[in-house]
Amino acid sequence: MTLAVRYLSARTLDTAPAENPSPGPGEVEIAPAYVGICGTDLHIFHGDMDARVAAPAVLGHEMSGRIVRVGAGVEGWRPGDAVTVMPLRWDDSCPACRAGHQHICQHLDFIGIDSPGAMQQRWTVPAATLIRLPESLALDRAALVEPTAVAVHDVGRAQVTEGEKAVVVGGGPVGILISLVARAAGADVRVVELSPHRRRLAEELGLTAWDPAHADVPALVGEWTSGAGADVAFEVSGAQGGVDTAVDVLGARGRLCLVAIHARPREVNLHRFFWRELTLVGARLYDRSDFEHAVTLVADGIIPAQRLISKVVPLTQAPAAFEALEGGGDVMKILVDCTDDSQGAAQ
Amino acid sequence: MTLAVRYLSARTLDTAPAENPSPGPGEVEIAPAYVGICGTDLHIFHGDMDARVAAPAVLGHEMSGRIVRVGAGVEGWRPGDAVTVMPLRWDDSCPACRAGHQHICQHLDFIGIDSPGAMQQRWTVPAATLIRLPESLALDRAALVEPTAVAVHDVGRAQVTEGEKAVVVGGGPVGILISLVARAAGADVRVVELSPHRRRLAEELGLTAWDPAHADVPALVGEWTSGAGADVAFEVSGAQGGVDTAVDVLGARGRLCLVAIHARPREVNLHRFFWRELTLVGARLYDRSDFEHAVTLVADGIIPAQRLISKVVPLTQAPAAFEALEGGGDVMKILVDCTDDSQGAAQ
Repeated sequence: MTLAVRYLSARTLDTAPAENPSPGPGEVEIAPAYVGICGTDLHIFHGDMDARVAAPAVLGHEMSGRIVRVGAGVEGWRPGDAVTVMPLRWDDSCPACRAGHQHICQHLDFIGIDSPGAMQQRWTVPAATLIRLPESLALDRAALVEPTAVAVHDVGRAQVTEGEKAVVVGGGPVGILISLVARAAGADVRVVELSPHRRRLAEELGLTAWDPAHADVPALVGEWTSGAGADVAFEVSGAQGGVDTAVDVLGARGRLCLVAIHARPREVNLHRFFWRELTLVGARLYDRSDFEHAVTLVADGIIPAQRLISKVVPLTQAPAAFEALEGGGDVMKILVDCTDDSQGAAQ
Repeated sequence: MTLAVRYLSARTLDTAPAENPSPGPGEVEIAPAYVGICGTDLHIFHGDMDARVAAPAVLGHEMSGRIVRVGAGVEGWRPGDAVTVMPLRWDDSCPACRAGHQHICQHLDFIGIDSPGAMQQRWTVPAATLIRLPESLALDRAALVEPTAVAVHDVGRAQVTEGEKAVVVGGGPVGILISLVARAAGADVRVVELSPHRRRLAEELGLTAWDPAHADVPALVGEWTSGAGADVAFEVSGAQGGVDTAVDVLGARGRLCLVAIHARPREVNLHRFFWRELTLVGARLYDRSDFEHAVTLVADGIIPAQRLISKVVPLTQAPAAFEALEGGGDVMKILVDCTDDSQGAAQ
């Protein structure tokens, strides 16, 4: 018997024993090693996604681990292989899939939201979702591959090129990862973030961070760009003020990549979109090439994953970690360690 | 002495004699033949642009005419040549110009708003603004080239391709022209328009028009596209409801081309931009290639310009025509005829 972290109802998680049926045809059973807690997991924890999440639900989709068992017909994988998972299942028949955009399938199953996630000691997924990890990459760092894939996708959607000036509005884990990926693509980056803790971490990573509460960000961008405005902005804050800032900083033909989830409609200065011929581009999730690029970036240390891991907690402490994360500010990424034998994992 | 239509103050136009100095170096003097009244001219007439327009101001930027005199150093043009004008002067030194986007120069002089326009019997402009008209193209139809260039630019910004499904929200002159240009590019088009008169004209031009007051447009698009949603939408209405419709009709990776001027921020469903990875692209004015393409489309009859001309009034009746246009609905394009000798044009 193994343990799983389960969402029961708003603000209530537990850990409970879970069944481990044999993997079916085309499936593999994984022993998750580390699972990151994502903003989406927190939304679920808060009860904001009860219409979508069927409790009890096992959360978690930012993970690393090793294959334990392989189902019938699975080729190219064997027990012991280090893997992460691209947690998407699509129907391959909806209009989005037929147009080649499977990752935004109109009936997407996001594993860890719509079906059981990785925050458990055994996890069975389709072999098609596996992404190989190099043995040289420590599994705790590898848990950052999934959010890095998000950032790779975002930077790709924004078509960031060498020498461009980019403003990232929101310096949480995804904002910092976008900043690092954009920098790796040759962009000069500024991060806009309210939290002093997060600004400090950004600066430690060699980024320049601005406090929007005490600085006129569009004016700073004006100075920085000699009046031209930024080439690219990323809206990662989820706030109305973040949208305003991201629009205000852009120069002629600037691109705004919309990353954050805005549950409510936002006021947008459309006149500026007209006047400067701006582009707004929505970005959601990733595809396999984004994931594979993310593995390389993390493995090569271009993403200093270790610096983004604020804390690692044992699986049994995951419920408490969610409560602590609600405080916000002073943490970046918390990983749940699913490997501790004393937690009851089957050998 | 020749006559000019002048904007004096909110809702007040007159016609008055104008000076005709010789064209300076690099300039040409034109005898405008026909000048269209544009939505922007109506905004000026209403007093909405008094902060920008220095009264008394000669309006008009949708024109056709013939060269009368040529200034020093002007090559390739001579008296009698049929022309239209791309009414833009840029500074060639601002960041937008340096990036190759002269048409959205940060110090753009839009001739007919920021400097004297075409609604007069003699008009002096830089030779660099001239666009040659074929002798086969009647000058009344040629007055539609400028708004057609807007439509060409919009369809280009939206990257419309053969076989795509496009929804045009707003069936005034620019909306109809966008519909026709998109159709010429191979798109299947639906027009969304409140005015029965404008819907009827759209249908007469072979377009399908929907009444958003009596139809559920997103549902109609769903049926039309077998649930996929449209590939492209154009927001040409300037209304909040138009923005909502344009966002709601789009399928995965759909593009919304923002054409209308929204003086106020609008509520935008950003979640849908994220969820479907939509793109919003602002489109303003045109460049020379758009203008040259527009000449071809009008000259070849792909734009049935004659059908869009509701009425032609003599220059002395232009003030009354502006007042009539305020009624809206039942007209498409009104042209001011500047050629009538009885109006006092110098021979």
